[in-house]
Amino acid sequence: MAESFGARLVARVREVGPLCVGIDPSADVLRSWGRDDDAVGLEFAALQLLEASLGVAAAIKPQVAYFERFGAAGYRVLERLFDEARSAELFIVADAKRGDIGTTNDGYAEAWLRDGSPLAADALTVSPYLGLGAMGGLLTQAAATGRGLFVVVSSSNPEGRPVQTARLETGERVEDGLLRQLAEANEGFDLLGPYGAVVGATRQHSGFDFENVRGPFLVPGVGAQGATPSDVGRLFARCVKGSVLVPVSRAITQAGPERRGLHDAARRYRDDLVDALLK
Amino acid sequence: MAESFGARLVARVREVGPLCVGIDPSADVLRSWGRDDDAVGLEFAALQLLEASLGVAAAIKPQVAYFERFGAAGYRVLERLFDEARSAELFIVADAKRGDIGTTNDGYAEAWLRDGSPLAADALTVSPYLGLGAMGGLLTQAAATGRGLFVVVSSSNPEGRPVQTARLETGERVEDGLLRQLAEANEGFDLLGPYGAVVGATRQHSGFDFENVRGPFLVPGVGAQGATPSDVGRLFARCVKGSVLVPVSRAITQAGPERRGLHDAARRYRDDLVDALLK
Repeated sequence: MAESFGARLVARVREVGPLCVGIDPSADVLRSWGRDDDAVGLEFAALQLLEASLGVAAAIKPQVAYFERFGAAGYRVLERLFDEARSAELFIVADAKRGDIGTTNDGYAEAWLRDGSPLAADALTVSPYLGLGAMGGLLTQAAATGRGLFVVVSSSNPEGRPVQTARLETGERVEDGLLRQLAEANEGFDLLGPYGAVVGATRQHSGFDFENVRGPFLVPGVGAQGATPSDVGRLFARCVKGSVLVPVSRAITQAGPERRGLHDAARRYRDDLVDALLK
Repeated sequence: MAESFGARLVARVREVGPLCVGIDPSADVLRSWGRDDDAVGLEFAALQLLEASLGVAAAIKPQVAYFERFGAAGYRVLERLFDEARSAELFIVADAKRGDIGTTNDGYAEAWLRDGSPLAADALTVSPYLGLGAMGGLLTQAAATGRGLFVVVSSSNPEGRPVQTARLETGERVEDGLLRQLAEANEGFDLLGPYGAVVGATRQHSGFDFENVRGPFLVPGVGAQGATPSDVGRLFARCVKGSVLVPVSRAITQAGPERRGLHDAARRYRDDLVDALLK
C-alpha cells in the first residue's frame, strides 16, 4: 500500500508551509481581472493562480464549480491545470464536495482518485449528507493510491451549522460523530491516515478532539472570511505539525491579475501561516 | 417569471406518467453490456437508455458521477445526451448532488440551471450538508428559468439515516427541517413551486407532511432496491397528482443492451407507476 496521504501531506507542509492557494475563477474574478467570461478567461485565471503558487504553496485547491460552469470545455481547462500542477509538484485538492450512495461514490472514486484518470487529484473534498458509511469505495481507493479525502465536517458558513450541530441518537453532534468515524477509519495508518476533515477556522470548540482524528485538516476561513493564521494555530495546536492545510483564495486573488502581485500576496500568507502553525 | 418547474412537471407526468429513467452507465453496466470502459462505451450506453425512454418516461436522470469518470470526454458525452434529450422533449434531472457555500453555489447554478449553458438541465439534485440557506443563488436561478431543484432530504440508503434523523435545536429532525424550509421557499408559487425533495421510497413516515411541501418529489428505491410502485403511491397519496417522479435504473438497465428489451422494461414500469400513482 502507498504511503498515506496524511503522511505525504505532513512532509510537504513541513517543507513548503501550510498554504493552499484556492483557485476560484468565478465570473466576478474574471470580470475584475478584465477577462472574458469564457473558457479562455478561465484558463488564464487558473494558470495565473497556479504560477503564483509555485514555491510558496503546498497545494492548490481548484473550486470545481467554477470550471463546471463551462461544461466539457471547463473540464478541459481543469485537466490542463491538473497536468501543470502535477509537473510543478503542487498537491491538488479537488474541491468538488462530491457525495452520493455507495455505487455512485465508486464512480467519483474512479474520477478523482484513480491513477491515470485525467482528473486524478491528491485529495478530494466530499460532503457527507448521505453518510460516510456509503463512501467505502472512496476510502478504499484513496488508501490504495496514496490519495486522501477531506470530509466536510464543520463549515465556515453559518447556514450549515444547524445540520452540523444536530444531535445524533447517541447524543453526539453530527460533526463530532463524523470526526469519530474518521478517527476509526484512520486506525492502522502510521503517523496520519488519508481521511481528513474540513473544519472552518471560525469553529470554536469540539466535543471530539481534533488531534484524535489522526488525519489531515483543511481549514477555510482565513483572509476574506475574517479568521487569522493565529486562530488556526490555536485551534489545532495539539495536532501533528504539518497536518493542517489552510486554503486562502479571495485575499490572494484580489491582488491580481498580475502574477507578481499574486505571488507576493501568497508569500505573505505563507510566511504568516508558517509562523503561526509550524513554529 | 417562467412557469415553475413543479407546475411543468405535473403537466408532463400527467401526460406521460411518473417514470424517470436513471441513466447510470457505470463500469459494471458497460462490462455486462459487452462494451469497452471508455467514452465511446459510455456514449453508447447513455444513448441506448435515452432511446429506450422515448414515449414512456417523463424524464431521464443521468448520474453525473459515471460521466465524470472520464473527465472532459465524459462531460462531452453528457452534453450530447442533454442535447438529444432536449430535442426529444424529455425532462433532464441532472443527478449531481451538488452543494457548497453561497458563492460557489452560484457557480453550480450557472452550470446546471442557466439558459444556454451546455449542461442546462430541467432540474438538479443538491446535497444540503452546508445548508439550504446557502443555496440562494440556486433557488433564484431555478425560479427565474422555470427549472427546479431536488434537495436530498431522506435517502434510500441506510448509511445516510443517522444524519438525516438527527435532532435540530428546535427538536425537529434534520429531514423535517429541510421539508419545512422547502415549503417556505415554495410559498407564492401556483400549484407547485420549483423546490423539491429526494425522499427514498422505503421511508415510512414523516414529521412534516409531504403534501405541505407543495413541491415535486423524486423518489428512488423502486425496482432493484426493493420498493414497489404501490409503496410510492401510498407514501405520497395526499400529494398533487403528477408531482412525484420515480427513477428506475438497474431494473431497466439489466434488460439491455438491446433497445427493444430496455424499452419494454421501461414501459412495464411506466404502466405500473401510472396505475399506482395517477389513478
